[in-house]
This record gives sequence, structure tokens and C-alpha cells, in this order.
Amino acid sequence: MAFEYLTNVPLEEARATYLAALRQAGLSYRTETIQTSTALGRVTANAVYARISSPHYNACAMDGIALDAKQTFGASETTPARLKEDAFVWVNTGDPLPEGCDAVVMVEDVVQEEDGVTLYAAALPWQHVRQIGEDISAGDMILPSFSMLVPAALGALLESGVLKVEVVSRPVAGIIPTGNELVAPTEEPQAGSIIESNSTVFAGMLETWGCIPKIYPGVRDDPTLIEEALRRALAECDLVVLNAGSSAGKKDFSTGAIRQVGEVVLHGIAIRPGKPAILAHAQPAGRSVVPVLGLPGYPVSGILVMEELFKPVVESLTCQPAQPVEFIQAAIARRLTSSLKYLEFVRTRLGNVNGKTVAVPLNRGAGVVSSFVKADGIIHIPQNTEGYEAGELVNVQLTRSRAEIERTLVITGSHDPLLDEIADILKRQDRASSVASSHVGSIGGITAVKRGEAHLGGIHLLDEASGTYNIPYLRKYFPQGGVVLVECVQRTQGLMVPKGNPLGIREFADIAGKRYVNRQKGSGTRILCDFLAHQNQLDTETVPGYEREEYTHTAVAAAIAAGTADAGLGILSAARIYNLDFVPVCEEQYDLLVAQSAFQLDMVQRLLEVLRGAEFARRLSAMGGYSLNHPGEIRQWN
Amino acid sequence: MAFEYLTNVPLEEARATYLAALRQAGLSYRTETIQTSTALGRVTANAVYARISSPHYNACAMDGIALDAKQTFGASETTPARLKEDAFVWVNTGDPLPEGCDAVVMVEDVVQEEDGVTLYAAALPWQHVRQIGEDISAGDMILPSFSMLVPAALGALLESGVLKVEVVSRPVAGIIPTGNELVAPTEEPQAGSIIESNSTVFAGMLETWGCIPKIYPGVRDDPTLIEEALRRALAECDLVVLNAGSSAGKKDFSTGAIRQVGEVVLHGIAIRPGKPAILAHAQPAGRSVVPVLGLPGYPVSGILVMEELFKPVVESLTCQPAQPVEFIQAAIARRLTSSLKYLEFVRTRLGNVNGKTVAVPLNRGAGVVSSFVKADGIIHIPQNTEGYEAGELVNVQLTRSRAEIERTLVITGSHDPLLDEIADILKRQDRASSVASSHVGSIGGITAVKRGEAHLGGIHLLDEASGTYNIPYLRKYFPQGGVVLVECVQRTQGLMVPKGNPLGIREFADIAGKRYVNRQKGSGTRILCDFLAHQNQLDTETVPGYEREEYTHTAVAAAIAAGTADAGLGILSAARIYNLDFVPVCEEQYDLLVAQSAFQLDMVQRLLEVLRGAEFARRLSAMGGYSLNHPGEIRQWN
Repeated sequence: MAFEYLTNVPLEEARATYLAALRQAGLSYRTETIQTSTALGRVTANAVYARISSPHYNACAMDGIALDAKQTFGASETTPARLKEDAFVWVNTGDPLPEGCDAVVMVEDVVQEEDGVTLYAAALPWQHVRQIGEDISAGDMILPSFSMLVPAALGALLESGVLKVEVVSRPVAGIIPTGNELVAPTEEPQAGSIIESNSTVFAGMLETWGCIPKIYPGVRDDPTLIEEALRRALAECDLVVLNAGSSAGKKDFSTGAIRQVGEVVLHGIAIRPGKPAILAHAQPAGRSVVPVLGLPGYPVSGILVMEELFKPVVESLTCQPAQPVEFIQAAIARRLTSSLKYLEFVRTRLGNVNGKTVAVPLNRGAGVVSSFVKADGIIHIPQNTEGYEAGELVNVQLTRSRAEIERTLVITGSHDPLLDEIADILKRQDRASSVASSHVGSIGGITAVKRGEAHLGGIHLLDEASGTYNIPYLRKYFPQGGVVLVECVQRTQGLMVPKGNPLGIREFADIAGKRYVNRQKGSGTRILCDFLAHQNQLDTETVPGYEREEYTHTAVAAAIAAGTADAGLGILSAARIYNLDFVPVCEEQYDLLVAQSAFQLDMVQRLLEVLRGAEFARRLSAMGGYSLNHPGEIRQWN
Repeated sequence: MAFEYLTNVPLEEARATYLAALRQAGLSYRTETIQTSTALGRVTANAVYARISSPHYNACAMDGIALDAKQTFGASETTPARLKEDAFVWVNTGDPLPEGCDAVVMVEDVVQEEDGVTLYAAALPWQHVRQIGEDISAGDMILPSFSMLVPAALGALLESGVLKVEVVSRPVAGIIPTGNELVAPTEEPQAGSIIESNSTVFAGMLETWGCIPKIYPGVRDDPTLIEEALRRALAECDLVVLNAGSSAGKKDFSTGAIRQVGEVVLHGIAIRPGKPAILAHAQPAGRSVVPVLGLPGYPVSGILVMEELFKPVVESLTCQPAQPVEFIQAAIARRLTSSLKYLEFVRTRLGNVNGKTVAVPLNRGAGVVSSFVKADGIIHIPQNTEGYEAGELVNVQLTRSRAEIERTLVITGSHDPLLDEIADILKRQDRASSVASSHVGSIGGITAVKRGEAHLGGIHLLDEASGTYNIPYLRKYFPQGGVVLVECVQRTQGLMVPKGNPLGIREFADIAGKRYVNRQKGSGTRILCDFLAHQNQLDTETVPGYEREEYTHTAVAAAIAAGTADAGLGILSAARIYNLDFVPVCEEQYDLLVAQSAFQLDMVQRLLEVLRGAEFARRLSAMGGYSLNHPGEIRQWN
């Protein structure tokens, strides 16, 4: 196997080098002239000047009479002006001002007589007349070059007689998916096959940026086929994205194929994820140079490379005003290490708790595209930085607006799917509401609330000594108070086992010698598990996989469903989703711990109402394994 | 003529009343199930749960070998582990983890031998394996109801096997233009005719808000025809906008027609502009209630009523997350009066000058749609408020981002089209640049710069005593300094007269007895005009229209071109645009006055470079009437 040497060029330098190379190769945008009435969202190619004035005639601005104002000079309550039929003209709003008239008197001020009208006040010249060019004078510049045609801009163009407009053409962006393992996003995948979702994501990004995306059929991992696909796309597109195969593995044919048709400017950027990106271009005969981007296969890497390195290229072809990137400072909720070699991007949730903006980093896995859906921002860890300690202020690029972050309820603690159901009920009541929940276990929840990093968290913590839940922990962790305990649900914990329970597991002690999958330390379920092992005098050394840790009930269930484990402790709803059998072990109390400072917040109060409501009860009953006692009630604990 | 009584309901109350009436009438959205890969920008109708886990199999995360990690336990530099061919499997990234394996060793760490491989380090169980559900577990809620499907969300759905998704249908929004005077936006208008631009603007707004707009053919002012058009639209649409005819004039048939097909909830809102809006609904057989909006004809009124009263209705049909409305406080640049009866909306420019946000109100005319194009925000003057004094802090709803406002160059002063050309050159150099120029005359420019409300302004002020330009005024207005004077152009002022100069005007004194159109007091051109009148011993009382004031050179030219005046003082480029004859009167110095605090700003320095550049000279030469001496040079004056 031959390895291609990848460079490690810093991001800014890579971006500048690529743009400079493209400019030198003659990168340019196309333009077209279209009907103004169809130009919504397009960008002007040149400054646009008014062809006619608006109004383009002197227009009556009121319903009433038009007249020569001189006839009314001196008119008053005591000395009214009387006008005969031939001295004025009845007009409606928008009518042209009749010849010889220079003012309009509104109908409310006109007293009609047999043979004319009487006016009790003088009219000023040009009153209630919209004069030619009042809005726009012919020849005035209405919009400069590269202006986005928003609805009002279309109105201004049409009013000033600009019925057609030259706009920047939307670049056609070709996307070539490669890989033997790909299946179309309409097909059911088998093990080893990958749903070809990247093209849909990249097409969506390119469309959002003003391109016309064009997804080509998937190409197998064959250098000749990839080169053919590239040639076809180069003939038809203004930009080409090749995905995946940009790295240096034995099935990575992108660089080779691109070198056959064009020129590689850079291969290897000092960012993580996204390092093995290929920045290239090709020159189809008789056309402007076509930027070509080679992307790695992991969607997160691809998205970041698209954002950081290809978006500026797209913008120079769409001429759209660049959206400013907004950064904020946030206190990071946990330690985050990073390599000195790369600028690292870490997706993060953000929340505003008690006046402080807190960043809770998400899973860094390059395959975890859902982290983009959950993310409120992206932490930038600069190159030559080892990372951050918990509590340090970090720079976060916002991916949601500050306003959205302000009204996001931050829930950090033990995982239960009911939290997602609560979020959905809240959202259906008020679309502006938003819940950010992180699954860090019950002790993690206590820590987050204590540190002011969460508004609330779910906890189910068994005190071995007393056999009671939660309250003993609060007395220990919050001796000064500062938190409110809200009753939530009683739920059944049990062993999830494959359908039919092939190993005949009947009680907790039966896990001895079985392949087990556990929850992470600090989670309520892990504490329960350790308690049960102790109670059953079970040596956990005899349980293979007891140290294998998953972060959610459903992840444990998934492992059992996939056959990589025989049993794991969890809740009924998770077992049901994976069609597993469920061996009940005990009932436990799952409550919500709310920071005192957050308790009066409108969004917290609305959550408590949800707990007390019928919709919540209905959903829990459908999920199974829960019982409700006094949901939403405050539990006295100190 | 019969007048319908219009109510004057406060905005908030009107909005709440209308929404409540629609809800009571059963307003509801439609949903549809579509391919996920085509769902960009759509909104989920329900919570979406993962159908399969992602990854949906245990996947190798590296190129290398898969093996049972136990075989490597204890391996080190000194005690390497040697594996035979049957003890491992070569794998590529993305391959399913082979049966019996629980870890992957990357190829870089594998030493290949004749009959197998050697490893110099132990492998940890599950290393370099992306376990089932690492990203998403089947059954997890991926998105709550009413989530916008951004590109990454589409990726998350596809990865979790959600190949189809139920989304909220895009409401079909019918727009019925009415009015005898309308001509299509593709036709040349005649006096009295109005280019039908409103429908394009409203369609653009509705499309931006997530609707499918449908513009119906224009309907003449005939109650029966309007009613027919309404019935047809009600049968085909989820929302209907009727424009214009919502007021109470003799050609306003909207309320009558709406009452024939449905119910008017409110007619008359306490806002300005926009008062005569009609909030109504109708109930087509077998369908959900259809909101019907009657709008006045002035585009500004229509846009504001759409934004303030119809957008919330649209949002309850699209279920899109409402975009937060952002307000800032700004010091108002001039006095603004307002009626106690209405909540008034005034479009305004905003600028950030020396750390202070300044609002410069735009023309309030309800017909002036271009004011929306220029506007950075909308001042809200509450009901029961008489207005504001200059310098008072006012609440401004932003229509551009704060970042855009920060980087906007505020130019306030004398009007010359060259300022627009400079703005365009800057924009072509840097799409992020933006210039906000207000035309208030030279003295207005001095005042704005002095008060810290503008970065710079154009001035051409003749000192009668010395016969020199600008510098004497700076000595008077800025005795302490604080401003920089930058040379701009010499330009020719002259009398603009109709083509062929029918009245034989040869010099300034010839305007005696002619219909004149003047510029506003405080403008350099007005000062020049008064000077010329004085020099020529001309009694301005003998010049009809000497008091008629326009704010720009082109507006003066437009009045002459329209035949409402015989002559006016102005610059050659304005005369050329209107195909007028031009009688040169004198040369004058047009300079730029720059606040000292703004001089070092990057955007000001780039403007000076434009002045010195070839493109500026080329454009001025094409416009005619200018000569350049040392453009961009600093003129010493104190």
C-alpha cells in the first residue's frame, strides 16, 4: 500500500492559498438577465438605476377634488371659497393630477352644493399631490451591485420601470458520491452498507448558499470510473464536490483522479476533523475554471470542510453578501483536550443559566452528524493549544441566534426518553421553545446544576443506606439548599435481554458469566447496578463486559439487539423500541432537580405544567414502564 | 358617497383578536409525507424518531486489521504479539466488524510478516470501532415537532433510516390585485396607470415565510368581479390577500366583497401607515377556515400590515419557528412628530458613528417603497406619543443585522450621484461594505458631522464674501477643528431647461417670470441660487415656484421633464438623465467633510482610495460635468 503525503497547512493559509490560486486561474461568475418579478432572492450583477420616476406622473394622494390652489387663497370659515363645476375635478387616489391643477382637497373637506363646492380653508400648492419622482427619480441608483433582491427591492425596481434585471447566475454545483458501500437514501441498508446521506447534506448546504445542486449517481471505488464521473461533472458544472476518498487509504482514489483532470492546490489542512481535504481545480475547454473539492467520507468532516474552505469559494461565484460569523465567549462545562497540530472544531450546546453562557461540548466523533442538529455553536480550539480546563472561557461560533439560546431550557442529567417527550410537548405548545438535554448521568446532573451550568436535570439516585431515592443525595450535595426537587415519575428498571430470553435470565444475579453491557459511572442506573451486584454478592469480575459503558438506555438496548451483549440494566421503553424481552428488577423514583435561580423562569413553570398535564400521562402510558403519583409537585427535602 | 366606519383598534389587540377568531373558526395546518432527501427547508409535523441505529452495525473506524483484542493483551515493544493469517482480518474504514472481533488496529501500527502480522502494543476492546448506535440509537427522538429541516438534519434523518418524513404543507397563498389603473409588471405604464408591483412584493414576502404564492390576474374595480375572484381563490388557497380597495373611498369594494363570502373580524387598525386593513376569514365547504386580508393600495402600508398582522397567521400555518424581532435604542437625528391616535412606523437608516447608534428617519410617504430598501430599521412611535425631539433615544426594530450596521459608512450631506457611484465601487471591491447616504444639503451635512451622526458628508458651500468654497464655512462651524476636508470634484452648475430650450434661457437672470423649481433651504445649490439672484439683482418674488423645494438634482430635473417647471439649477448629469438642455452657469467645488474620529476607519480610507482611483475618474467622465484636480487629497483649512 502506498501512502500519499498529506500537508498540514493552517486553515487561514489554506483558504487564502486556494482562493488566490482560483483567482489566478481566472475564477469568475456568470450573469443572466431575468424578469424582475421572478428575481426574488437573486443578487444584482451591476448597479441598477431607475428607468422612470416613481410616481411617474403627478398623482392625487387623496380622494377629493383637484384644483388650482390659487382659487382658494384666503378661504376661511368666515370667507369660504365657492367653486363652480368647471373650476375643479373630482379625483380618486392615484389618479393623475388634471391639467391646470396643482393641489388636491380631500373629500372630507369639500362641501357639495347644487352648482359646485364650498371650501372653508385654503389649499396649499402641491398639497395631497405625490409629485413625480417623490419616491424615485429616473436615473437614481436604486441598488448597488451585489444586492440581494428582497421583496421590497423587487417593488422598488418595478416601480421605477426596471422590468428586467441582470443578476448573478446561480452556480451549478455537482456532487459525486463514491464508494462501493453506498446505498441510495431510499433503500434499506445492510451491514457494511452506508446510506448515501452526505450528498443530500452537501446539496442542502450548496442550495442554501445560492447554488443549484446536482447530485450524480454513485460511483464505485474505481479510479477510471471516478475520473470519468469527474470529466462529466466538469463539463456540466461550475463547482464540483467529490465525496469520499480524499484521504490516503487504499481505496482513496480522489487525488489521483483529480490530478488526471486538473490540478491539486492543497491536500491536507491543519484542522480536525477534516484534515484530508483536497482543494483543487480544473479548466474545462472554453469555460471558466471549475473549483473541485475532495472530501473525506465522514459527514462531520465534510460539513466542516465545506463551511470553512468551500463556502468562500461559493460566495465568490454567487456574489451574495457574506453572512457575518458571530462568536461568543462561554464557560466550558468540562475539560477538553486537543492536539497541538490542528485547529479543532467541537460542536457544543450553549445555554444561558443565571446570566452565564455555558458550553456543553457534544460528542466529537466525525461520524456523528446528529451532533450538528443538536449543536448551538462550534468551539474553536486554536492550533498550538492543548485544550481547556472546565470553567475556562472559550470562543464559540454561533450556529443559532443569541435569542434562541436565551430561551433554551438546559437539562443536564440522567437520561430518560420522557425528557424528549416533554421537549416535544413544549414545542407543540410554543414553537419558540427549545430544550437542550445532555445525558451525563444523575451525578453529572447534580454537578451541572450545582455549577450553574444547567437549569435542571433528571436524577434517580438510590441511597444504599436508607433505600430511598434522591433526597439523601441532595442533603449531601446541597447542604445550603439552592435547589428545588420536583417529583416526576416512578419507573421500572429491569434487565433487557434478547427476544425469547434465550439464556433464561430471571433475576439480577443471573447476569453472572453472561456478556453484560453497563452504563457509565455516575449514572443512576450504574449506581443501582452496583447496588444490586453488592446486594446479590455478585463478583463483577465474573461478568464479562461489566466495564463496557454506554451513555443511554437505548444504547444499551442497541448493543443487546445487535447481539454483542446478552443483558443490560435499563428501562422498559428502551427494551420495547428494540423488541427485547424485559425482566423487571425494581421500581425507582425519577425526579427533576431544578436550580432555585431557574425555578421561577417561565420556561421552567411551563415544564411543570406539562408534567401535570394529560398529554404527558398519555405519552408515558403509551411508552410503558412508568407510573405517576404526583408529577410536577415539589418534594420537600430540607 | 357612503363612508364605512373604520375602527381604530390598537395593534396588539387587533393581532390577538384576529388570531383568536381564526382559531375559534378552526384554523389548522395541513401535513404531507415526502422523501427526506427532498425535504430541505421544510418543517417536521411531528417528533421524528430513529428507525435504525447509526451506525446500524459495528463499523471499523480505521483501515487496518480487525481482531479479538484478547490476543494482544500484554503485547509491547519487547514482547510483541504475533498473529497468524487466520487470527485477524484486513479491513477498511466503514467495513462491518467481522464476527468474533472486538477491535481494530490501524494499518500504521501493523508490521506485516510472511505468514501474519506483528503488533508492538496491546489493543483495547472496542478501539477504532464505531459501535452500533454511537451516533443515534433506534427509537431516539432525533427532532421534535416543528423543527426546520436544515442540511445536517436531513443527514441525521437519513442516517437513522428515516427515508420519508411527515412535514407541514406549505400553505398556498392567493394574491388578488384589484384596480382599473393596474398594468402588469411587464408593461410600460402610462400617466394614471400603476405598475402592479405590490403582488410581486407580497408574493415575495409570503414565499420567504414558507408559502407557495399564487398571483391571480388583476381584477377591475367592480364588486361582482372582486367577489368572483375571491370565491375562486378561496376554493384554491389556504390564505388570501386582496389588494387594494380596503379603505372607505368610493372605489373601495373589498369589505363588501369579503362580507359576501365570509366574515370581517376587524376593519381599521390604530397604526400608521396601514390603518384601513381588513382582517377577515371565510369558510370554504369541507375545508379549514381561510384567513383573508384586505390591504390598502400603498405598498408601504401593505408591507407593514403584512408584517405586523398577517405574518403571525402565516406562521401558525407553516409552523416555522418565529424569527425573533430585534430592537435597539438609537439617538434620533431629527425631530419626529406623530399622531396620538396611532402607533406609527417610520423607516430609518441606522449608523454607528463614534460608538453611538444614530437613526436618520427616511421619507414617511406611504407610497415610498424604496424606503424599505434603504432602511436599516423601523422606528416604532407608540400610540399616545406625540413624537420625539432630535437626540432622544428611540426604539428601532432592526431590519438588518447589527454587524451590517456596524460596517455601514454613513454619508449625510449634499446630494451628488457620484456618492452612489462610490458606494457601488466600494461594494464591488468588498461585498460586505455598505454606504447609507442621506440627502439633506450641505448645511445639513455640516450639522450631521458636527453632531456625530455621520462619518462624512458632501458639501459645496459658496462664501459670498470671499467667493471661495467650503473652507470659510468650516472655520465658522468648526472653530475647534475636529474635521478633515477632503477634496472631491469640481462640477458645473447650470440651469436645466426642457429640450430645445423653448423659452430661450441663456443666463441665470433669464429665470425672471419663468416657472422655476428650487432646491431646499440649506442645500449648497440653494445658497448658490440665492447668491446668483442677489448678484443679478433678481427679485425672487417675480419667479413663480422659487419657493417650490426639491431635495435632489434629479427631482428638480424630473419636474422640468414633466413640464411642471421651466427651469431649475442643477448639475449636468441630472439634466442628461432626463434628456434636458443644460445652460452652464458656474463651476463649484464639491468636497467631502470627514469627522476626525472617522478618518482612520478602514472604510473611510478605502473611500479615499476610490476617489484617487481610475474607476472613479472613468465613471465621472461618463456622467459628464465634472473635472478632477486632486481628488482624495486633504485640503488644509485651519
